[in-house]
Amino acid sequence: MKSLQVVVWGENVHERKSEVVRSVYPDGMHAAIADGLRENGLEDVTTATLDESEHGLPEERLESTDVLFWWGHCAHGEVADAVVDRVQKRVLEGMGLIVLHSGHYSKIFKRLMGTTCSLTWREAGEKERVWVCNPGHPIAAGIDRYFELEQSEMYGEPFAIPAPEEQVFVSWYQGGEVFRGGCCWHRGNGKIFYFSPGHETYPIYFDKTVRRVLANAARWAAPRGRWVDSCPNVPADQAAEPIINRGPRLHQDGDEGYR
Amino acid sequence: MKSLQVVVWGENVHERKSEVVRSVYPDGMHAAIADGLRENGLEDVTTATLDESEHGLPEERLESTDVLFWWGHCAHGEVADAVVDRVQKRVLEGMGLIVLHSGHYSKIFKRLMGTTCSLTWREAGEKERVWVCNPGHPIAAGIDRYFELEQSEMYGEPFAIPAPEEQVFVSWYQGGEVFRGGCCWHRGNGKIFYFSPGHETYPIYFDKTVRRVLANAARWAAPRGRWVDSCPNVPADQAAEPIINRGPRLHQDGDEGYR
Amino acid sequence: MKSLQVVVWGENVHERKSEVVRSVYPDGMHAAIADGLRENGLEDVTTATLDESEHGLPEERLESTDVLFWWGHCAHGEVADAVVDRVQKRVLEGMGLIVLHSGHYSKIFKRLMGTTCSLTWREAGEKERVWVCNPGHPIAAGIDRYFELEQSEMYGEPFAIPAPEEQVFVSWYQGGEVFRGGCCWHRGNGKIFYFSPGHETYPIYFDKTVRRVLANAARWAAPRGRWVDSCPNVPADQAAEPIINRGPRLHQDGDEGYR
Amino acid sequence: MKSLQVVVWGENVHERKSEVVRSVYPDGMHAAIADGLRENGLEDVTTATLDESEHGLPEERLESTDVLFWWGHCAHGEVADAVVDRVQKRVLEGMGLIVLHSGHYSKIFKRLMGTTCSLTWREAGEKERVWVCNPGHPIAAGIDRYFELEQSEMYGEPFAIPAPEEQVFVSWYQGGEVFRGGCCWHRGNGKIFYFSPGHETYPIYFDKTVRRVLANAARWAAPRGRWVDSCPNVPADQAAEPIINRGPRLHQDGDEGYR
Repeated sequence: MKSLQVVVWGENVHERKSEVVRSVYPDGMHAAIADGLRENGLEDVTTATLDESEHGLPEERLESTDVLFWWGHCAHGEVADAVVDRVQKRVLEGMGLIVLHSGHYSKIFKRLMGTTCSLTWREAGEKERVWVCNPGHPIAAGIDRYFELEQSEMYGEPFAIPAPEEQVFVSWYQGGEVFRGGCCWHRGNGKIFYFSPGHETYPIYFDKTVRRVLANAARWAAPRGRWVDSCPNVPADQAAEPIINRGPRLHQDGDEGYR
Repeated sequence: MKSLQVVVWGENVHERKSEVVRSVYPDGMHAAIADGLRENGLEDVTTATLDESEHGLPEERLESTDVLFWWGHCAHGEVADAVVDRVQKRVLEGMGLIVLHSGHYSKIFKRLMGTTCSLTWREAGEKERVWVCNPGHPIAAGIDRYFELEQSEMYGEPFAIPAPEEQVFVSWYQGGEVFRGGCCWHRGNGKIFYFSPGHETYPIYFDKTVRRVLANAARWAAPRGRWVDSCPNVPADQAAEPIINRGPRLHQDGDEGYR
Repeated sequence: MKSLQVVVWGENVHERKSEVVRSVYPDGMHAAIADGLRENGLEDVTTATLDESEHGLPEERLESTDVLFWWGHCAHGEVADAVVDRVQKRVLEGMGLIVLHSGHYSKIFKRLMGTTCSLTWREAGEKERVWVCNPGHPIAAGIDRYFELEQSEMYGEPFAIPAPEEQVFVSWYQGGEVFRGGCCWHRGNGKIFYFSPGHETYPIYFDKTVRRVLANAARWAAPRGRWVDSCPNVPADQAAEPIINRGPRLHQDGDEGYR
Repeated sequence: MKSLQVVVWGENVHERKSEVVRSVYPDGMHAAIADGLRENGLEDVTTATLDESEHGLPEERLESTDVLFWWGHCAHGEVADAVVDRVQKRVLEGMGLIVLHSGHYSKIFKRLMGTTCSLTWREAGEKERVWVCNPGHPIAAGIDRYFELEQSEMYGEPFAIPAPEEQVFVSWYQGGEVFRGGCCWHRGNGKIFYFSPGHETYPIYFDKTVRRVLANAARWAAPRGRWVDSCPNVPADQAAEPIINRGPRLHQDGDEGYR
């Protein structure tokens, strides 16, 4: 079986601008995430960043990508709409997408959800406890009832998302809030997983359990077929039942229609 | 009880440019839709069109709108993004949205769904039969097992939408296709209903049953509360449980965060 | 407008057998729940209990019930299947159902969910904090970000339910667990809300906020139409399109079919 | 990789009692279904029938079953509740379940859905056209826009099911009706697919496309992990956060609780 082709996209801005972040992720967060996936047996993992040409996501590369991870925070607005368009197109076709932490506010996640994706937040280095809602779910494989992160950024309800199709994790934070931090959706033919842990000032992507979750998620989100969406016109003479055109028309056979 | 404030938005382009459409809808499609709602007991129904200032949907008007109908086709691309933004914001807060026919490709519907919203189509004046999937659903109130439209534009599967939360109607067309033509979703705190009948070259919005469905839908989509979404920061000293800030931070108390 | 007809069903067993429970709910839990609803403006609220004939839920009474509350715990097994059948039938037709606390294991809730409805639990009198997931949801009307119960029974994830269509509340408990304690579903044409607070050894149904939630839920679950389900046979000569019977058959016209 | 262990359960009553059915399925419908799966590359396919001991589904066999197909019709009522209980338990743990045609009224399907699962029907040997709603869905792999069955029993809306999580097929019948005939759900950790074609008086399970769909469905429904549901009590001294028991209690540590 062909190994899963995974691309980890990282904004890679704070890692260069902030000494704090650089000290935690000297090679960039994307590198740590990719290492975690490799550590868990995924063989074909590469990275892409904002400052590469086309943010490292040209059409041909996305074409062969099975699962894309997305971590962004301070530079969401700098991601070109053309790249967001093509990532969305690939997700709808069947590519898996794993959106991480502050990626809740990325253009691509808001685009696919249709909602604000906002939440309540606090950066206080508090403890997070992540609870498993379905112990048999492949994304929770290998985890017991819960796992803990010693320091985390609080993300709390209300989380402005469409109802998740599967709830894998719900988090609690030391300051008291709770958060639906592990959620699954289908959009088009693609699978989407949002996972909340991952603030850049804490070494969360070096955590063994978090790495296990990310690898599980990559495998869960593997493409399962491809839907190439074309909005086709089917003229009367090609209809399943014999019909003839009748009544007034705006379009001629073969028209593309208004889009 | 305050009567429901309904605004019917119509593109009103084909009605002026195409003699065929003008002959069917001399006062514009929005006028026919609004008349149908009034005929079914809705008292506070007004209209808005593309060529009005801000497309007739300035902030204050949307603010007091309970349910918005949306019909557009050839001019989807001319709708200003700022207006789409504010309609989306109001839907997420709780305003009802009824998207009609070719509105499946409107910016606002694609924005809220997160998918392409494409479909298969044919303009051949064929018969459409609309089947009821839940005879107790308020949007189907007053309809028997099905109703028919003598001439309709075919919209067929695959319909590229997220799974509907409720399926109210499924249509069949004379040429053989089927279509999930009556679908409900929640997004944020708002209710959304998509209803497929309504091609501009046929007198569909004068049909008594269609008008009944539209009025039913308006009542179903009435706001049920308001969610003003703010993505608040909750500083450590206001947390539900006493915590202190610890660990490295990127933000200061009171920061807006990156959006 | 006809006032909503609400019936509060209470098992009323522990209230009589356990001195502790009787001291908290001397008139029975059902009475306290009903009082809370009346206090919040619902006018037509009555009660029913296990030891009444047909558990107080004969067919004619259910027929005119708009919303049914269900609290049970130690005597789930004593509820007659015939009564469960008729409650299910009424929910599918359109009656609202509010399932409370230990009712997660009631026959009617398991019947409607199709899953075990199990959870993790601990009776330690610990604090519960209930967080709002959609501040605009009618069931959360009048509540701020969260409310607290000084003593509660812990109900924790995994909660073995189908994915909720709307998440209204998520709870946290002092011992650390989290729980999806406020969930909405449609089944057939009826609305179902599960609300977790309500252990019988604590005065939870005297809490002002809990009472507000229960009244909100009753109004949210009000019937919206009626689906009388008959699984009809439509003979060939009554089909929408003219067809003739052909091929071998097992049934004759007018057969009821196998059920 | 271990090959998928598939069991095809067939009622096998009409095949023996009805000459018509026997002439179409001389070895029983279960045998034809199993042959179709083998033809499409599934290696480990066995069958079970109603009249075997425990209907051929003893606990150990279900324990090692990955995907179960279910075809029943006139003898739904003869299926022992104990067997239904154990099939449900295995589905919730993660076993895949494919429910076929008249199985919409089987005890196990009604149990898992929580609704009546009724529909409109007609046995007239009319044509059925099955439309694909997501061309990239693995269950529709290898199928074009639609496929046809020359003779089929009509199953029409309303279909009394919870909203499908994915709509794979919608059918149309010559007499005019439409039907959501290919639907996916998760319940617990298991995947469920309902597929409507398959009336016993027509050779539908010899149809090449139908056989392809069944094999696709088996692969889609393959278990993805296991959720052994225990409803555990977590005593105060084992809580994630240190707490002490306080307040009145009904249960002692280690209690099983009321079920």
